[in-house]
Amino acid sequence: MPDAAGERRAVAGERERFARAALTRVIEPGDEHGGRWLREFGAQGLMARLTAAEHEEAGLTGATARRLAGYRIRAAGADPDRDLAAVASVGGRFICPGDQEWPTQLDDLRDARPIGLWVRGRADLRKWALRSVAVVGARACTPYGAHMAATLGSGLAERGWVVVSGAAYGVDGSAHRGTLAAGGATVAVLACGVDVVYPRGHAELIGRIAEQGLVIGELAPGDHPTPSRFVLRNRVIAALTRGTVVIEAEYRSGSLVTARSAQKLGRYTMGVPGPATSGLSAGVHELLRGEGVLVTDAAEVAELVGDIGDLAPDRRGPVLPRDLLDPVSARVLEAMPARGAADGGRLARAAGTTTDETLGRLYELHSLGFVERHGDGWHLTRGAIRGSNARRGGP
Amino acid sequence: MPDAAGERRAVAGERERFARAALTRVIEPGDEHGGRWLREFGAQGLMARLTAAEHEEAGLTGATARRLAGYRIRAAGADPDRDLAAVASVGGRFICPGDQEWPTQLDDLRDARPIGLWVRGRADLRKWALRSVAVVGARACTPYGAHMAATLGSGLAERGWVVVSGAAYGVDGSAHRGTLAAGGATVAVLACGVDVVYPRGHAELIGRIAEQGLVIGELAPGDHPTPSRFVLRNRVIAALTRGTVVIEAEYRSGSLVTARSAQKLGRYTMGVPGPATSGLSAGVHELLRGEGVLVTDAAEVAELVGDIGDLAPDRRGPVLPRDLLDPVSARVLEAMPARGAADGGRLARAAGTTTDETLGRLYELHSLGFVERHGDGWHLTRGAIRGSNARRGGP
Repeated sequence: MPDAAGERRAVAGERERFARAALTRVIEPGDEHGGRWLREFGAQGLMARLTAAEHEEAGLTGATARRLAGYRIRAAGADPDRDLAAVASVGGRFICPGDQEWPTQLDDLRDARPIGLWVRGRADLRKWALRSVAVVGARACTPYGAHMAATLGSGLAERGWVVVSGAAYGVDGSAHRGTLAAGGATVAVLACGVDVVYPRGHAELIGRIAEQGLVIGELAPGDHPTPSRFVLRNRVIAALTRGTVVIEAEYRSGSLVTARSAQKLGRYTMGVPGPATSGLSAGVHELLRGEGVLVTDAAEVAELVGDIGDLAPDRRGPVLPRDLLDPVSARVLEAMPARGAADGGRLARAAGTTTDETLGRLYELHSLGFVERHGDGWHLTRGAIRGSNARRGGP
Repeated sequence: MPDAAGERRAVAGERERFARAALTRVIEPGDEHGGRWLREFGAQGLMARLTAAEHEEAGLTGATARRLAGYRIRAAGADPDRDLAAVASVGGRFICPGDQEWPTQLDDLRDARPIGLWVRGRADLRKWALRSVAVVGARACTPYGAHMAATLGSGLAERGWVVVSGAAYGVDGSAHRGTLAAGGATVAVLACGVDVVYPRGHAELIGRIAEQGLVIGELAPGDHPTPSRFVLRNRVIAALTRGTVVIEAEYRSGSLVTARSAQKLGRYTMGVPGPATSGLSAGVHELLRGEGVLVTDAAEVAELVGDIGDLAPDRRGPVLPRDLLDPVSARVLEAMPARGAADGGRLARAAGTTTDETLGRLYELHSLGFVERHGDGWHLTRGAIRGSNARRGGP
């Protein structure tokens, strides 16, 4: 039974979340002025100021006053109840800093940190993001670029990595598809509401990602993409993942923006080379002549990004006690054979749930260090077997 | 009139050169044991020991005794008079350490330094080597590799760089051809005698290089290539040049040997990327994942290798007084217009010599900092103009 103080904290938390949901309609992604005010006043405090009848900003300079006026107009029209209902109607949710599921890597963005994220899909974003890599590139890619994206996607999936991309045509789409085809985990970060299908031709793909993976975004339900939203979306892809792989990008392309964001945030920046005669590889080659690392397959990517000691729990066994796992994850883990490997379908039947649900849980269990994937098979890590034996043989 | 001491020195120099010419038939390229003995005894001393009737090596261990026995057999058959006549008959010469034309970069090879070099062609090897880049790669290259080699060759030529390669099929041949087609300077380093045409299909190409450029090698006239001679030839290509560009190379290919030699010698190592799906680019990509620098065109190569202050005289003007130039180079330099550019044909007519001869001299003058090439035109460097004005206006 929760005590009164706990209940008060929970209610305060819900109010803050509600205000943050409202603010995703008010403050544009990556707006650092908004981010600073949010830090200063808190979400509820900021919304209260923006919706107050009396204006306090008489002494402010022109640009700031104009910015605030814009916020006020948007705040007046914000309806978080409607937005939360809209995202719930497509099986989604809203998460924000402080939540269990909030990927704390995003805190590296400081005042440009997303106010919150609208999320569709079953998996736990925080756990997935722990072992994720971004694969991005040109919309108008060549067949070579599409091939490399799909191959990297499936290869990373087979090594237990979550593939993050932007759901665009070309490289992004191929990376998502390659991952899905290998029964892998993939996250689409949209530059619009998670209930908006953009690009239209990817309706089926985005639907499939929402089923088998995660579709996330900073923008409130119904919001549409704009050029600046595409650019700013890229910082979320960069911050969420351990590294970004660029496959085919022209000079000054959006993918290079993602790569440079990744670099600034201390993430790995990688590029897949192509012919020196291809304009679509020129941007990648520019990256590789700087800080970027040349990669040609998933093994090389995994070797590089897997090389972070404190973020590679599977080498040392699970980072969370089994008892703290949610019931479905615990059932999937129980279904794992003590020796050898099992595929997702078999584990799903044993755990009494769907294959998509099971795959989602398996990638979470992978992030937590309980299981590993090799090709199509999943098996317990040594640490998980040791932990299990210790528990069974313990007091 | 030379004095008696000068004459004695000249005679001693000629005897040493004669002995070195003989030793190129005795000691295999890159044989460091031979190199050490050569350093210890001098060329004449070593030849005297190898051809002496009495053997002094009774106390030597098995391997060394066997090596010496092999040297003795070869030394007995050496006929430097015949070899020097043979190379002279194809318009060639023999150069060795201490000669004006000896490229002192080769001294970096220490005991594996060539004993001497057999040279065909008009140009001064030492001056050319000062501003040279190696372009090497797969024999069985793709059309992409051949295209990139030819494009780099002509692009480097147009920037006044000398292109060094191995005259092999594939990338090497394309690099030489691209350079020749741009009226450029190119050096073929053979793994056989400079009078031996290998590969046979490159008879015309090698003949053209001997006319317009230089054909050089460590092996005595008539000697044929062997697998180990190909491998050891690569160290000469690496040592001679400021940097090596690899275009298409499989894992464990000879071109990578050249690149690694270049690296060890402190030269720049560069690679032209290709599709990650191409086995012929796999070796290049391996190089680029290490110390190699990714390059996609001649400008990037020139920018990198031109960045050595003490070897870039053209930035500061000539390094040699005009009065010390040989008569033909001096005539070509005199033919240069005070303002603007002239092409090789026009300069050849003004200097009263052939176009090939003129181009050879122009690349030497470039190395010495008198002229620069941009596209098809040659013009005086600022330093050369300053020097010329100072001379004309001086006391």
